[in-house]
Amino acid sequence: MLPVVLDCMGGDHAPREAVAGAVSAVRDHDVPLILVGPARRLRTLLAEHDAAGRIPIVHTDQALEMGEGALASWRKPRSTVAIGCELIKHGKAGALVSAGSTAGVVATSAVRLKSQHGIVRPAIAVALPTLPRPTILLDAGATADAKPEMLLQFAMLGTAYAQILLDVPRPRVGLLSIGSESAKGNKLVKKAHELLAASALEFAGNVEGHDLLLGRAEVVVTDGFTGNVALKTMEGALRVAAAELRQALTSSRTAKLGAALQRRELTALTSRFDSETYGGGVLLGLNGAVVIAHGASRARGIAAACKLAYDLSRGKLIDRVKEQLGASAKPSIPSIFTRKPPTEPAPGGNPA
Amino acid sequence: MLPVVLDCMGGDHAPREAVAGAVSAVRDHDVPLILVGPARRLRTLLAEHDAAGRIPIVHTDQALEMGEGALASWRKPRSTVAIGCELIKHGKAGALVSAGSTAGVVATSAVRLKSQHGIVRPAIAVALPTLPRPTILLDAGATADAKPEMLLQFAMLGTAYAQILLDVPRPRVGLLSIGSESAKGNKLVKKAHELLAASALEFAGNVEGHDLLLGRAEVVVTDGFTGNVALKTMEGALRVAAAELRQALTSSRTAKLGAALQRRELTALTSRFDSETYGGGVLLGLNGAVVIAHGASRARGIAAACKLAYDLSRGKLIDRVKEQLGASAKPSIPSIFTRKPPTEPAPGGNPA
Repeated sequence: MLPVVLDCMGGDHAPREAVAGAVSAVRDHDVPLILVGPARRLRTLLAEHDAAGRIPIVHTDQALEMGEGALASWRKPRSTVAIGCELIKHGKAGALVSAGSTAGVVATSAVRLKSQHGIVRPAIAVALPTLPRPTILLDAGATADAKPEMLLQFAMLGTAYAQILLDVPRPRVGLLSIGSESAKGNKLVKKAHELLAASALEFAGNVEGHDLLLGRAEVVVTDGFTGNVALKTMEGALRVAAAELRQALTSSRTAKLGAALQRRELTALTSRFDSETYGGGVLLGLNGAVVIAHGASRARGIAAACKLAYDLSRGKLIDRVKEQLGASAKPSIPSIFTRKPPTEPAPGGNPA
Repeated sequence: MLPVVLDCMGGDHAPREAVAGAVSAVRDHDVPLILVGPARRLRTLLAEHDAAGRIPIVHTDQALEMGEGALASWRKPRSTVAIGCELIKHGKAGALVSAGSTAGVVATSAVRLKSQHGIVRPAIAVALPTLPRPTILLDAGATADAKPEMLLQFAMLGTAYAQILLDVPRPRVGLLSIGSESAKGNKLVKKAHELLAASALEFAGNVEGHDLLLGRAEVVVTDGFTGNVALKTMEGALRVAAAELRQALTSSRTAKLGAALQRRELTALTSRFDSETYGGGVLLGLNGAVVIAHGASRARGIAAACKLAYDLSRGKLIDRVKEQLGASAKPSIPSIFTRKPPTEPAPGGNPA
């Protein structure tokens, strides 16, 4: 299996936590890795974990700064992210992990890896902390102005991702809207509803904001603007609720005593809604999976991201997206991705 | 002061809870009311509260069903909502309260009351449970496909509403987006950002989903699709957090004991995030304020809605919107309400 390449200079705590996470990914999760960053510094950090020489390093001195956006991909042709993408392009690695700025990582990997054949725009998928298993929301911010056809493609990308992450052969796809009836929504959503209903996907109809954590679908599709607002609104609401809970439980002496008795339960709950536990996103639709870990990630978050990237690479994400594109390339769908009529229809239905 | 007219047949618990709420509004909050609905039935319910003959009743047998949407406004010309609007139109009442279906109430009042002069589309404003005072989010679902100019008008509507509800002379207006920089967002938001920056409003720039409960602005403006998704996502997240908290606190004997010690604190917290406490919306931009209470409202929610409607009527909401339109009707703003190109460019930069 191809290794995962880790950008060691992305994130608020790079490179220290990146290297610590890398060591944990290799030791605890058997993920083969390549590190990208300043070689001497990374070697020193590896030595601190008694791992000097255990993980290959590709040297570069350039890195995207956290504040840097899309333009940095041009200004810094030898950034850690750019080098990571080149390793994937040349068949040396299967996926990339970075905790760098989302805008910079998305722009650099879109330019370097390019979209998969037939995919118009990439999408960022995030796993929401739904029980008993996560709900995949996409797009969480890669494509702010989407067209109905792009939402259909996001549904295919999400389906491929859910097949690997959740091990569900035919994940249900919901369309984020403002009412459960097909006539509810804005123009974009109404048109996308038609396309999804006519597709080979397991379309579950519209879902609403309050359904996001209820598991009514494994995949929820929306444009990058709405998805980003919904994700951040949810994170914000959970964070405020946790903060106020903490305050409520320590506001009186009796309440404090009560809280002491509940330490274990409250820790479990807080951890479930902690964005580092479920956090980070996966950039889908490019020629290589790119896992964007939270900028604030510590070693644990980096290790989890490396494991996810490895699972996606082993699960043949790119091939599964191809299958979804093939299965849904029916003449009934106005196809903007082929730009030519398909010469041969896919041989079967939806390959699970 | 003109009385508030209450639709007694809207909502899941109509007319019983509507009448109970009306009695409370009159007795506890000194709100003058007119009830609309089946006269005999309402009289009987009033008698149960020893209030027979105390509140005037306008009779009608027609009512919008909870499932009924926009078309009902045509099918039922004598619905409680339609009669309520006519009372406002003829100067007999100052505002309307209904717990009926949002789509039906919005459509009926838009047709009957018509938009205020200069306002292109109405918007639903909701008060989010931000501390120390609510944040007003609009549009929460009246206009799913908005234009940049409409977002500017929503900002004016929200400003007028916030002046009355929060008693702030110049409320800060935030624009809901996916990054704090002005260049972040979709096309709609980027263009709206320019219009807001050039307006006479107290524009506070972009705010993100996780800022909604942090009070960074008194008013947050967005299109009806994004606003509805954000509102329901927040409600859903808070509901799930509360449910899981309840489960966590009763999952073991020690935890249960702890919860017993915290009853008072937990009740206060749950109540703050309970949508009936802060819930309901106000339809802004029409010739009369329309308060849409939650469909599940009980007497307490109805009474609060009546009080809010009365405050808006006394606070001269319609005049304040006019002022906002007047203050911002500068030639520098591409005006879709005049429909003619501006003849003279604006003399200066941003007033504020």
